[in-house]
Amino acid sequence: EERRKYRPLDEKAASEYLAMVAPLAERLGGSPQDWNIKEVGDGNMNFVYIVVGPRGSLVLKQALPYVRCVGESWAMTLERAYFEANALRKEFELVPEYVPEIFHFDHPMAVIAMRYCEPPHIILRKGLIQGIVYPRLADHMSDFTSKTLFFSSLLALDTHKHKMAAAQSYANVEMCRLTEQVIFSEPYMEAPNNRWTSPQLDEDVRALREDIELKAEIAELKARFCERTQALLHGDLHTGSIMVTETSTKVIDPEFSFYGPMGFDLGAFIANLILAYYSQDGHSATEGGREDYRGWILQTVSDFWTSFAAKFKREWDRSRDSPGDAYVPAVYNSPEVIELAQKRFMEELFCDSLGFAAAKMIRRIVGIAHVEDLESIANVDVRAKCERRALNCAKLLMKQRRKLSSIAEAQLKLRIVQ
Amino acid sequence: EERRKYRPLDEKAASEYLAMVAPLAERLGGSPQDWNIKEVGDGNMNFVYIVVGPRGSLVLKQALPYVRCVGESWAMTLERAYFEANALRKEFELVPEYVPEIFHFDHPMAVIAMRYCEPPHIILRKGLIQGIVYPRLADHMSDFTSKTLFFSSLLALDTHKHKMAAAQSYANVEMCRLTEQVIFSEPYMEAPNNRWTSPQLDEDVRALREDIELKAEIAELKARFCERTQALLHGDLHTGSIMVTETSTKVIDPEFSFYGPMGFDLGAFIANLILAYYSQDGHSATEGGREDYRGWILQTVSDFWTSFAAKFKREWDRSRDSPGDAYVPAVYNSPEVIELAQKRFMEELFCDSLGFAAAKMIRRIVGIAHVEDLESIANVDVRAKCERRALNCAKLLMKQRRKLSSIAEAQLKLRIVQ
Ligand SMILES: Nc1ncnc2c1ncn2[C@@H]1O[C@H](COP(=O)(O)OP(=O)(O)O)[C@@H](O)[C@H]1O
Ligand SMILES: Nc1ncnc2c1ncn2[C@@H]1O[C@H](COP(=O)(O)OP(=O)(O)O)[C@@H](O)[C@H]1O
Ligand SMILES: [Mg+2]
Ligand SMILES: [Mg+2]
Ligand SMILES: [Mg+2]
Ligand SMILES: [Mg+2]
Ligand SMILES: [Mg+2]
Repeated sequence: EERRKYRPLDEKAASEYLAMVAPLAERLGGSPQDWNIKEVGDGNMNFVYIVVGPRGSLVLKQALPYVRCVGESWAMTLERAYFEANALRKEFELVPEYVPEIFHFDHPMAVIAMRYCEPPHIILRKGLIQGIVYPRLADHMSDFTSKTLFFSSLLALDTHKHKMAAAQSYANVEMCRLTEQVIFSEPYMEAPNNRWTSPQLDEDVRALREDIELKAEIAELKARFCERTQALLHGDLHTGSIMVTETSTKVIDPEFSFYGPMGFDLGAFIANLILAYYSQDGHSATEGGREDYRGWILQTVSDFWTSFAAKFKREWDRSRDSPGDAYVPAVYNSPEVIELAQKRFMEELFCDSLGFAAAKMIRRIVGIAHVEDLESIANVDVRAKCERRALNCAKLLMKQRRKLSSIAEAQLKLRIVQ
Repeated sequence: EERRKYRPLDEKAASEYLAMVAPLAERLGGSPQDWNIKEVGDGNMNFVYIVVGPRGSLVLKQALPYVRCVGESWAMTLERAYFEANALRKEFELVPEYVPEIFHFDHPMAVIAMRYCEPPHIILRKGLIQGIVYPRLADHMSDFTSKTLFFSSLLALDTHKHKMAAAQSYANVEMCRLTEQVIFSEPYMEAPNNRWTSPQLDEDVRALREDIELKAEIAELKARFCERTQALLHGDLHTGSIMVTETSTKVIDPEFSFYGPMGFDLGAFIANLILAYYSQDGHSATEGGREDYRGWILQTVSDFWTSFAAKFKREWDRSRDSPGDAYVPAVYNSPEVIELAQKRFMEELFCDSLGFAAAKMIRRIVGIAHVEDLESIANVDVRAKCERRALNCAKLLMKQRRKLSSIAEAQLKLRIVQ
């Protein structure tokens, strides 16, 4: 029934559609022939139109009923647009400075209209490839994650609200299944979707698929992903879902949003910074020419975690007046016990985050979806070398994460695996 | 609206009600005046009528909109009858030999009619107090738990079915909240509901409330309880929810059923066996007169875990043809990796089970709801001594559970804490 009201919009149809939605037409100003429409979707999943009118601009995003980069053979639920809209709204409530405002959501059409993150905003991944420093990035992303994760968790909510929110998010199961498949299964098995730099990494991939330690670890991480309803996640928080300038950070594209383990979001961001780190050798004009930049990336990983932990703890401390149901004040009633509880919580979260970061790195090197950071390295031997380092680092992080007690220690490993 | 269709049944009204439900009246045979009706609810939560007619018998259980043993001031959702009926049906599908069959469920009336577990069935807790040996208990309960937990988990289900089942069970949130309160919070704080053998245990209770290690542990267990949707649990699997003869075992009363961590059910059963173990000194006519019986209880704890692990593994091995989504066969594709994955899974589950067992022991000694095993010990000094041992054992189990790698090791601790 709902499906019958869906039709995919091309540029012309998008313009006609916008003309019919008064608040959007008004925001753009003038009349449809004055509007400049451009499709900019980078091609994985959805159509994204940037629309600029005489008065204002917006972005129109529409889900397709299949994976765009694979084709109609791989069906994909339109409902993801609903979860994206929901998550964007929740995030906007909590951290409006880091999220494009939603102007309009059309459920049957799977269409979202949102604020255009105007130039000079670019996708963070592209900035990292160009070697641009973003001095506010760690600060902004630690803000975004600490608030979105804290306030959707049992640290801020009562059991009733938390369970209801988690139950609602369960309907995004198709997207969770996709994640399970491409992150937690396929990289560790033979699958037609998989690809890697061949023959350079053939041996590494073979070793990966025979690494029973690693497979035991990924099983545990997958169980946490599937079974732990800790907080409302973005669900796809890589550097391609973040738009930046030197002073501004905007998080887009939460279509994979669901209630899951916090470490999955934190790990996604960390993983993609580490991938950028290991890819720098492929982008520097001269040998070691990106040394300072690599240092900045490492520092950003470290600043991100440190700031996240500090801000998350600050929210926790502040929530004393209206706490969630997780830590009842009458039980956690002394500075000592609160400190211990927070320490334990953070240790577990750090361990989770490293594990999920490792999983996300591995899948970007041997799975279906790679990252431009590495793909854009023209010299395949250089690329393979970068990829091998990243892969070895990921294996180490996944296996040793329980023993790494601080971000400084983890950072050290990154410096060592070269 | 639904609430308006509810009315509590006394014995007379119950008889009239049964007369109106043709299949039930027929099962009983004769006419209402031939039916023998007796209320046997042990008083915590619900009305339970045993009804015997000329042809057959049944049990009629009705939920009350409040906690029966506290009074109308503590409201309690009638919806729990719905979750009880659902769980009974699911369990009956999987392990019919251990569950009374449901004959009838009336949602607005919160009434369940089920098979009467006839004498000589008695509540296991009462048998344990009397010192009766149940040679089949470990075998039956390991059957019950291994099948109900395995087949509702991602080891047997695909992600879609698993998430939908978990989402449905979320509506039993009121019962989860009650568990959170009485198991994971109140025992560790001052609360009007709490009671303990005083003044004998005053010092122990004070120490418990100042034990920040323990409070850090209970926070972790509570998070698992609230956030981990691993399997459909019974939710209240103590020895008062099990009816036994020497050859038969029936599990009743799953009104707390929800998707949670498997260790919560396993721990509940283990905890109540251990409480029975430590209470034996209070029941033996002569000093040490229940030594053999204590030995049998310990052996039953150990047999239960060992058989559970073996049967759970057997289901896992058997499920190769239609496995759930947790362990994709193409990834877990050698005996070595399967063995390692199973080992890791069981280690984590054992650790969880010990933690939840400890939590359940503690709350039965210092919280709102105590157990007859200890309450029925007339000499308060003897009782306090038994309780102190159980409490010390629980504290040890909760804090050391990560280091206890086998049931034999755990058993040893039980022998040591005297
Ligand atoms: N609000 C926005 N402002 C500016 N550009 C955007 C906005 N949303 C999306 N884009 C552009 O469209 C691309 C694809 O958008 P995204 O939401 O990531 O779609 P997909 O789910 O298909 O990956 C982004 O990489 C970005 O370049
Ligand atoms: N199917 C049954 N057969 C025999 N006795 C039962 C049955 N169900 C309940 N009872 C008796 O009623 C008591 C209370 O039942 P239970 O389901 O545990 O209720 P509550 O939820 O109030 O604890 C049990 O302890 C048992 O003695
Ligand atoms: Mg995207
Ligand atoms: Mg996307
Ligand atoms: Mg109970
Ligand atoms: Mg009961
Ligand atoms: Mg009950």
